[in-house]
Amino acid sequence: MRSTTVWDGGGTRLRMCEVGTRDGLQMESQFVPTEDKIALVNALSHTGLAKIEVTSFTSPTAIPALRDAEIVMCEIDRVPGVVYTALVPNMRGAERAIDARTDELNLVMSVSETHNIANLRMTREQSFASLSQVIALAQQARVPVNVSLSCVFGCPMEGDVAEEQVFAFVQRFADLGVQGITLCDTTGMAFPSQVARITSHAIKGWPTLEFTLHFHNTRGMGLSNVLAAIDAGARQFDASLGGLGGCPYAPGASGNVCSEEIVHALQCMGYDTGVDLDALIAAAGRLPALIGHDVPSQIVKAGKRLDTHPAPADFDAIRERALARASQRAA
Amino acid sequence: MRSTTVWDGGGTRLRMCEVGTRDGLQMESQFVPTEDKIALVNALSHTGLAKIEVTSFTSPTAIPALRDAEIVMCEIDRVPGVVYTALVPNMRGAERAIDARTDELNLVMSVSETHNIANLRMTREQSFASLSQVIALAQQARVPVNVSLSCVFGCPMEGDVAEEQVFAFVQRFADLGVQGITLCDTTGMAFPSQVARITSHAIKGWPTLEFTLHFHNTRGMGLSNVLAAIDAGARQFDASLGGLGGCPYAPGASGNVCSEEIVHALQCMGYDTGVDLDALIAAAGRLPALIGHDVPSQIVKAGKRLDTHPAPADFDAIRERALARASQRAA
Repeated sequence: MRSTTVWDGGGTRLRMCEVGTRDGLQMESQFVPTEDKIALVNALSHTGLAKIEVTSFTSPTAIPALRDAEIVMCEIDRVPGVVYTALVPNMRGAERAIDARTDELNLVMSVSETHNIANLRMTREQSFASLSQVIALAQQARVPVNVSLSCVFGCPMEGDVAEEQVFAFVQRFADLGVQGITLCDTTGMAFPSQVARITSHAIKGWPTLEFTLHFHNTRGMGLSNVLAAIDAGARQFDASLGGLGGCPYAPGASGNVCSEEIVHALQCMGYDTGVDLDALIAAAGRLPALIGHDVPSQIVKAGKRLDTHPAPADFDAIRERALARASQRAA
Repeated sequence: MRSTTVWDGGGTRLRMCEVGTRDGLQMESQFVPTEDKIALVNALSHTGLAKIEVTSFTSPTAIPALRDAEIVMCEIDRVPGVVYTALVPNMRGAERAIDARTDELNLVMSVSETHNIANLRMTREQSFASLSQVIALAQQARVPVNVSLSCVFGCPMEGDVAEEQVFAFVQRFADLGVQGITLCDTTGMAFPSQVARITSHAIKGWPTLEFTLHFHNTRGMGLSNVLAAIDAGARQFDASLGGLGGCPYAPGASGNVCSEEIVHALQCMGYDTGVDLDALIAAAGRLPALIGHDVPSQIVKAGKRLDTHPAPADFDAIRERALARASQRAA
């Protein structure tokens, strides 16, 4: 049941999807050993996350960081209730993912023609045709499909993307019978008014589709966009452990919204994410050792809001002196 | 006039107060030359900001970074409509600030006893008595007074501060006839539900006081807290150019909310901040040369959301190859 305002969660249940193991690790220059990836996914599996994007069944030469996709997907523990998804770019990837018993195939294309060509080296129509074949294969294998639409809230090369184009692709994939659509703010161009409008339209227009919202914090609007989407009816969100994953167009700026920051804020506000925040923070705290550098996470640096600090060592002496000054003046 | 939801600004006028020149620069180890400080304030004066906290009339030995308070305050250009305020800790500071023709005295104390003793070396009652004298002096000199209450949304040592304590101090300062109160989230502990509740109570309870909200982004909730406060009726906000200013309890985490990030987001959402965003970003871009290090600002790194990037140099070739593959398959 929804509370009266978005500021008070009132126990509203939200589903959190972890993308750090795919969207985050694929950008790391240091190869994370396969056994460490498996241990990380296993740790995340027990935190109460609804879904984990474990890896990507892309060509090992294209993304060497995730060249161990099969082993990781086959060897992780499967915790009941957690959906283990993976990115799949094409038929070959779909066959590999299905062979590895992936729970859901996450397909991707961009609603921006320029971004799709630059990134996927195909026109949007070519991508759609290729993904249509993958969807048919998944349906034969009875594996659910989610489609992640990139650049829904803007393209870094084209600028704003017409909302009719976004919804036209939502309709075409709905017609193919996919289970879910992720509306992706690929480079952090989304802002709350737009998020509220697009999310509301999507949820009202396609009530049987499961919508996920995927935001980047590139311009500091990540959490506010999550809240605007919640207010518009969204209940499922992507986020990345430690805030892993950057944006090639904004070196040094934040990438994906950070899982523990989002969960921390939503829990403060009374939303039920189902996530064990301490376990999530502990997992994020182990990332720097795996990837060889600090993570953007503010919660890893600052702790939870009620993680208190000791008073200064000389606190009692300071107070005594203050009170002594006062009584001197009074005398 | 308010729009129907907080997500759409509908032209609602907000007043932005720049605190980087005080709250930011006072933490910098590198002394910013006086003429550079004056040039920075002068640049900010022409951006449409409502108020600028120019400096602090603290003891020069306590805060050497701002030891040039008088010269800066006396030599800046005074743009009509902009309020030039300064932090004033005590009677001596008030006399100096009034002599330097400061438009408004910004006094500070904490609503947390532990924080006040640790930070100001006085009990809260001692601070209140001292500030009462300053307020009387300012009233004699006909200079408006704002009181910044620290730790309204939590104390890093005590944890949550009882809201009755916060409102008791608001009432006591209102009784002394101050013009404004700033509700400060000193170490980034505020979260939106709490912000909405406290802000709403303050604005309804003391309708003639001018309330300012001062947030830190320490745990990634800065902009969301601003939006929750707007929804509760707040119209004036502190922010810091470049995101200058840290938090001693969270090394490496963000400090004050970043002026250009907040203005960028609010403008995207249709709020009227009155601020020339490009001029503000330009001023933020000159900070690293002044302070000797990068600033946290995501907008400085990533640009505005519609600052587009060129397509890859070989874009046309990529598209040609894609289309050629398609016609080969068709043939």
